[in-house]
This record gives sequence, structure tokens and C-alpha cells, in this order.
Amino acid sequence: MRARLAALSAGLEELGCEALLVLAPSAQDTDLAPFLPGPAHMGECLLVLPRGGEPRLGYMTPMEREEAAATGLALLTPEDLEISRLSSEYAEPATFLARVVGKALELSGLVPGRVALAGHGAAGTIQGACAMLAGQGWIWVPGNGLVFAARKRKEAEELDGIREAAAGTCEAMRAVARMLAAAEPGAEGELWLQGEPLTVARLRSEVGRIFAVRGYDQPRGNIIAPGEEGGIPHSAGTQDRAVRLGEPLVVDLFPRGRLFADCTRTFCVGEPTASFADGYERVREALMLAHRLARPGTRGWDIQEAVCAHFTDAGYPTPISEPGTTRGYVHNLGHGVGFELHEFPTFKKASGGEGVLREGDVFTLEPGLYEPEQGWGIRLEDLVYLGPDGLENLTPLPYDLDPKAWPS
Amino acid sequence: MRARLAALSAGLEELGCEALLVLAPSAQDTDLAPFLPGPAHMGECLLVLPRGGEPRLGYMTPMEREEAAATGLALLTPEDLEISRLSSEYAEPATFLARVVGKALELSGLVPGRVALAGHGAAGTIQGACAMLAGQGWIWVPGNGLVFAARKRKEAEELDGIREAAAGTCEAMRAVARMLAAAEPGAEGELWLQGEPLTVARLRSEVGRIFAVRGYDQPRGNIIAPGEEGGIPHSAGTQDRAVRLGEPLVVDLFPRGRLFADCTRTFCVGEPTASFADGYERVREALMLAHRLARPGTRGWDIQEAVCAHFTDAGYPTPISEPGTTRGYVHNLGHGVGFELHEFPTFKKASGGEGVLREGDVFTLEPGLYEPEQGWGIRLEDLVYLGPDGLENLTPLPYDLDPKAWPS
Repeated sequence: MRARLAALSAGLEELGCEALLVLAPSAQDTDLAPFLPGPAHMGECLLVLPRGGEPRLGYMTPMEREEAAATGLALLTPEDLEISRLSSEYAEPATFLARVVGKALELSGLVPGRVALAGHGAAGTIQGACAMLAGQGWIWVPGNGLVFAARKRKEAEELDGIREAAAGTCEAMRAVARMLAAAEPGAEGELWLQGEPLTVARLRSEVGRIFAVRGYDQPRGNIIAPGEEGGIPHSAGTQDRAVRLGEPLVVDLFPRGRLFADCTRTFCVGEPTASFADGYERVREALMLAHRLARPGTRGWDIQEAVCAHFTDAGYPTPISEPGTTRGYVHNLGHGVGFELHEFPTFKKASGGEGVLREGDVFTLEPGLYEPEQGWGIRLEDLVYLGPDGLENLTPLPYDLDPKAWPS
Repeated sequence: MRARLAALSAGLEELGCEALLVLAPSAQDTDLAPFLPGPAHMGECLLVLPRGGEPRLGYMTPMEREEAAATGLALLTPEDLEISRLSSEYAEPATFLARVVGKALELSGLVPGRVALAGHGAAGTIQGACAMLAGQGWIWVPGNGLVFAARKRKEAEELDGIREAAAGTCEAMRAVARMLAAAEPGAEGELWLQGEPLTVARLRSEVGRIFAVRGYDQPRGNIIAPGEEGGIPHSAGTQDRAVRLGEPLVVDLFPRGRLFADCTRTFCVGEPTASFADGYERVREALMLAHRLARPGTRGWDIQEAVCAHFTDAGYPTPISEPGTTRGYVHNLGHGVGFELHEFPTFKKASGGEGVLREGDVFTLEPGLYEPEQGWGIRLEDLVYLGPDGLENLTPLPYDLDPKAWPS
């Protein structure tokens, strides 16, 4: 946390700001949670970080006293902020927020000046409150990007949260493999399990059950895409579609516990076509290549280039050889993962420091190949942590296409 | 939708605004979804409603063309908004947003003037974009409250969404009743089921499984609170706490499908104490009273007063007889339910039109009694719809304290 606070202070200095203000509809807000030592169950709250100083957490209701105290942060209590008086005097939400924020800034030892603003909330209320405070001399600078950048390097407790979500993701992926391995082909080539066709809906329901037991949600759903649906990278998969013998199935799971995890495997029950089997080997090689190249100081884009060269050698188009291609390798190699599903580091060409892999980063490596006209897609995605001992795979699952080859 | 758009136009006139602008991180945004005829899977988007005119939906990526078209709304396409050019020219998010919003307002036939702002998003980005547009003559007025008020009366499709979530809530509540009914007391008075203590965690896991299969999430969790934990209205219940013979269990479920539902039942396996049994009858009577009084034109506060009088007659303190009481009846009677868990109508004393029940409203009725020192709490909550044929209970579950009396 020391390093993160120091980075934020340096960022505030660059922006010419005296402080950072985070407005949050709950303690789960992705700009507020990075200041907390662990999960906290709190509603609307705010945080003030004076440049070079310590963060203060403000909360709105005495009921949250214990949760707030457990964060170990300096607090601005509802009594300090005069929530009770202000809420009865100012019914209009923007005016109320302006009064509360003004009080929080004052109690944090600040006088009107430049403040970086982060967090999330109701657009009209935030705009209204900021405009009122601007009338008192406060100058607002967009600050969401500052916190986003500071979240790139994970704290130990955040890594634990990602590890846990990754373990749950692996559990769900193994359950999918088990169901596929236990299925038998029916007359029409559809896979059957326990007397019924093995549909996307049944696989999705089992995945949902496993995540529910662990208390994870799936705010962005998941991808369980058989055959031609897997040929389009963002097709989620149709519920009543049954999985068929000899066709690929792309399973991409990205649940959220306290933080997100993200992992993809591609399966095939029965004999894959020759072109698909060839593609699969190339994707597996690309993933191994990416694992080898992901080292501290390497640019994400450099690895993307190496993976593109690998696919070009194998005869597939890539975004470098054919910009905008919808067949072959059509996307980027990976993305950081944390409180949001897509964070820094980035693997994009146009990037500065956020495009360089550093110790403490958690990110995906996810090469894929897609042949929509041939009705198949392949993606293999590991979630990895760049730690002091090198790259660690947080999703150490088999890569076997055949689910029967997975340990049961 | 006609009536809703007319109400919004009237509201814009009152605010002296030419238009409403809704900024949304996704089509599920609670200020954007009320303009759509059903669910739409879209990321960042916006909506412009010129006063007295038709809404236009703006979206950011050509991949969402079909989803956007399916809404039936007039569209501002990524090509119209020049997303591709603007995103390459303006990397800074606030500047990019300002350009896109400026373009959307211009294409909607507006010239700089007063605009009500609703929706949600990143605080710094919204503030920054609005400040830039203010420099071009746009004047921002907080507009979240306007959309919040317009959501009070439900559209037919929204009612369907709540009905479906309510049906899932009933299914989960019946599953809890079945598990309780099947449990047997162990040596220490703990209930056992299938060779293990029946804990809050096991009940919660079954509830989570049922919601997961239906594709619902529980963004605010749930309350499964036995004994003394049920004596504090907002205690969620401890995972490893087993349910015990003769003690009450408060089960409050509030999942979100497309919209929320909300329902509470209180159970007791075995013989309740006399004071608890008396309290239970009083709460049941209060709920029946509320059902009878909830009619179009009635103020929510009037029903709260009637329920308080009922509890006062029965010898319990209430927020009217003892403001701030933590025993007896300690909360409000209900709240509207919709895209958010807490919407209009309100049952608070200080309220205008939002405190009057009208045809088309969906709300909870949830009297309760709490005796934290005696270690019990009771709450019974129905979700109801005030329709053309009167009050309809969307959660028509038994009120029996004994789960064995529930139909299996």
C-alpha cells in the first residue's frame, strides 16, 4: 500500500492537484476498494487522499461504524460529516453531496484548490455537486485514470482475492470437462448426458451453481460457445444449443469474487477435423511462447508481435498482417485483471508505462484462432501473476482438447 | 411508454431544460433501461430525449448494431457519432466523452442550453466532460431524480420482469421451507439435514443455486438470520451458524433478474416462545391491514401510521411512539421496487407525489417486530402490484411459521 500511495502522490503532483477525492456508491467501487485492506460491506462512502498524506475514509451511517473501523483507515464519521443535519437541511441530492464533500475536504485539512476526482456515481448528482463546489473555488481534474494506473501492481491481499477467484474458475472448468467426458453421442451426433441432450444451458447452470456456492457473481456473464458460435470471439453461446461430437467448444469463464479471474479452455469430444486440430496445436504453441516471453520489463505489444509472427509462419492472418481480419488470430493477446475484468497492463501498441509488464502485475495470455466459415474457434487463456520468482500460472489446468484426458 | 415520456417532458419543462441526457456504462443502467422495451446487451451508451420529442439511443461499437436496432428506438450509430475518429484523436476519457456527447446533442437537433443530466459513470470523466461542454454554453441540471420519479409507474414489460423475479424468489423461499421441514433436531437443539448441521451457509447455497439457474444475481446479498441475528433488521446472518429448534429464522431474499424482487418470510421449527408467537400474530395482522389499506390515492405514510397504531395497541414501541427505538417495530412499512431495489413509491412522512400509491406501482409491504434482547426478530414482506383490478400479491406464499405447514 505504501508504494501505491506514493505512486498516487506522484501522480497528483503531475496533475498539479492537492488531493484525490474518490466518490463511491459502495465500498466495492473499483476506485475505492484499492485503498482498503480487504472486503468491507458499506454503502455510499468517499475517500480523501491529500497529496503525500494518508487516506481518510468517510461513511454515511452510524450502522457502518464497525465495518469502517475494521479498514484501519483514518475515518470521517457520519458525525464528523454532519450527515444527519445535512440530510434534513438539503433534500436535493447534488446539494447534499456538495455539502458533505465540502466538509470532508475541509476536515482533511484542505483549502479550495485543485482536486483529482475519481470513483463513480449518479452523473447529474456528481456534476451538480462539483459545479456548486467550483463556485467555492474547488477546481476539479479527472482522476479515474490515476487510480486505474495505481491498481496495475497488485497488493498481496488483492493477489489472494484473484487467486481465490482463479481457483473457483478452475473448479468450474473441471466440472465442465467432467460433464463433457461423461457425455455419450446420440443418434444425430448430439452429446447426451443422463438421458438429455448436453446443452449450453446445462453447462452454464453447473458453472453458475459452483460460483453461487462460492459467492461469486458473473457481471459480464460467460462464454460457452460450441461449433460455429465459437468462431466469433464474443458470441456467448445459445442456451438450447447442444454440444455435438467432433465439434469444438470454447469455454471462457470470468467470475468476480472480491476481484475477477479469467480463464478459457477449448474442448472437443470425438475426432476433431484436421484443420481444427492443426489450429489447436498452433494456439497451444502460441500460449507457451507467451508464457516464455512474459517477463518484467517486456512490453505487452512485443509479445503480441511475437505471437502474430508465430501465427503468420503457420499460415494464419493476424491483426498485424491483415488489420481488421475476422479469421485467423483476430484479437489482442491479453489484459490485466483485478477489481475490473479489464485493467492494466495493456498489450496494445499505443501505450506507455501501462503497456510494460512489471512485477506485481496480474494479466491474461489468451491467443486464439477463428475460422467462422469453417465453423470453429479456439482460445486458450491463462491468468498469470508476474511475481518475484517469475511467472506463475494462476489457472494451472490441462490444455487437452479431449475432456476425457483431464484428470477426473 | 407514452405516459412516461410525457411525464419526463413535463419534468423537463419544470426544470427549464430543453432535453434529458442519460450517460450509461451499459444498457442495464437504471436510468437508461426504463427507455428500452426489454433487455439489451450493450456496453457504454447514451440516450438523448429532447423535450416533447422522441428518445435517441447512442452506442459506441458497430458490434452492437443488432442489439441497438432491436430496441426499436431512433439510433445514433458509432458512425453518426464518429466514435472511431474521436477515439483516435482524443485519448483522454473526459475529452473523448465531451466530444461524443456534443455530437449526440447536435445530431438530436439541440443547440447549447439547459440539459438535465441522468445516468451513471466515472465521476472524474463525467465532471471533466461536463465542464468542457459548459465552456461551449451547455448548462447542466441534475436529472437523476427526474428519471427516478418517472420509473415509479411500471411499464407492462417491466411488470413482467418483476413478476418473473418474484416467481424465482418464491421458488427459492419454498426450497428453504422444504429444507427446514425436512430437518431433524440433533442432541444440542441444532437442526440437522442429511447428516450435517443445517447452517445458514447451506440454505444460502441452495438459494444461490436456484437464482443462478435462472440467471439472477444478488447484488445486495440476502438475509438468512436465525435467532438473535434476526433481532437486528439488517444483520445478514452468519454462514456457519446452524438453525436451532424453537428459534425464529428471518429469510429476506431480493435477487435481480432484469428487475428486482423482494420477499421475506419468518420460520420456526418446533415450539416458538409465547412472546415470539404473540409477535408473529401481530405482524401477520399488520401485513393483512397493509394489504387492505394499499389503494390508489392512499399515501404510504398513512398506512405506516395505521400499522404503527396497530403495534402500539398491541403494546410494542414504534418509530412514531418512540423515535429511534431498536425494539418493537423499528422501520418503515415498505418501498417501491424496480430496476433498483429501493424505488418510489416511498412510505416516508416527508414526501410529495412520490409518497402516494398509484395504479402501476410495485412496492413491498413489510411490517416486522424485533426484540434483540429476547433474541428474536420477525418480518413478513410481500411484493405487491397495484393494478387496474386492485392489489395483486406477486409473492403469494404461505405465512405459516412452521415450514412443515407449507405445501411440499
